[in-house]
Amino acid sequence: MNSQSIIIGITGASGSGKTLITKKLTEHFDPTEVAVLSEDRYYKNLLDLPISKRPLHNFDHPDAFDHYLLEQQLTSLRAGKKVFVPQYDYKLHLRKKEAQVILPAKFILLEGILIFTSPALRQAMDIKIFVDTPLDICLLRRLQRDTLQRGRSVQSILEQYQQTVRPMYFKFIEPTKQYADIIIPHGGENTIAMDILQSRIQSMLLQ
Amino acid sequence: MNSQSIIIGITGASGSGKTLITKKLTEHFDPTEVAVLSEDRYYKNLLDLPISKRPLHNFDHPDAFDHYLLEQQLTSLRAGKKVFVPQYDYKLHLRKKEAQVILPAKFILLEGILIFTSPALRQAMDIKIFVDTPLDICLLRRLQRDTLQRGRSVQSILEQYQQTVRPMYFKFIEPTKQYADIIIPHGGENTIAMDILQSRIQSMLLQ
Repeated sequence: MNSQSIIIGITGASGSGKTLITKKLTEHFDPTEVAVLSEDRYYKNLLDLPISKRPLHNFDHPDAFDHYLLEQQLTSLRAGKKVFVPQYDYKLHLRKKEAQVILPAKFILLEGILIFTSPALRQAMDIKIFVDTPLDICLLRRLQRDTLQRGRSVQSILEQYQQTVRPMYFKFIEPTKQYADIIIPHGGENTIAMDILQSRIQSMLLQ
Repeated sequence: MNSQSIIIGITGASGSGKTLITKKLTEHFDPTEVAVLSEDRYYKNLLDLPISKRPLHNFDHPDAFDHYLLEQQLTSLRAGKKVFVPQYDYKLHLRKKEAQVILPAKFILLEGILIFTSPALRQAMDIKIFVDTPLDICLLRRLQRDTLQRGRSVQSILEQYQQTVRPMYFKFIEPTKQYADIIIPHGGENTIAMDILQSRIQSMLLQ
């Protein structure tokens, strides 16, 4: 079963609107038809690093992620097997004990900032989407989200932005735009682009 | 009839693949369902300019086009009326005596390098597509097309490229990327993007 899973990769800068796009794309479909895999569930365990040093780690580098596990779980889902996706404690920077069961589905939406840097992940994707939102808008959203939802200080967000988020964007994320099949400007509020993508998913479901 | 025409605008640099995309999008549909309007049919008559000076004219500036006539004809098509689209003599830079009748259709594909510079044209479009092909590939295609199909010399193409095509791209075309609902990299060979757009058109036809 589900050997015909279709994998849609959604990438772009942090704050570009990947999550909103993923949410909007799933909304119109039966939950059994769509599975979502988020790259940020696959951050590596920082057990070897003292707790005080963990927040200074470079979370915007491809090596911060366990892409190998992500590839394996994607392959399993595609082969019709359920997977146990890690849950991550973003304060302690450790994997939680409990994993989340994700069931195979006709569509798999894979979203994350660095998923296009992995040749194996790119190879697995049937449609590659790059969300291209101006970086000042991304920063604005990141500030709103991380101060309100994650209780971080403005100062720490800005420091991390200058030290890793921005340079890693230009070093690793922006160069993967070349692999995109389609580029979505204006993020998740771009209803015309959402309608276009939903039409494609709908037509693939009917095939 | 046809008051519900859907207008899809396709822009990008000269040589980006607009024409191929337009051709591929129309191929899958009944000819009565789709009408194509090309901006380069609306070049202004250069009757007041001596023939020897006409090739030196700036054909890459918005003022080179009769956008007013294009807007009027688009409005007529949308209102269900047939229009008489000019035919242009690209050697003499004059409108030919005979116009081409274009019938109204459910879908109107409007393609051209500077169609997004007109607020009235943008306003009329239901979907705005920017074809984003690297400029060296655009130049390569332009050289192949203009030497083979239009019998121009390499030298004249390169001169025009440096004098108007390239500077006008950065001055007028590239800034209109901000209006795009969706950006298509790799031009008309991008079959995944073509499938996505065709699905949307198909679903709109069924509505």
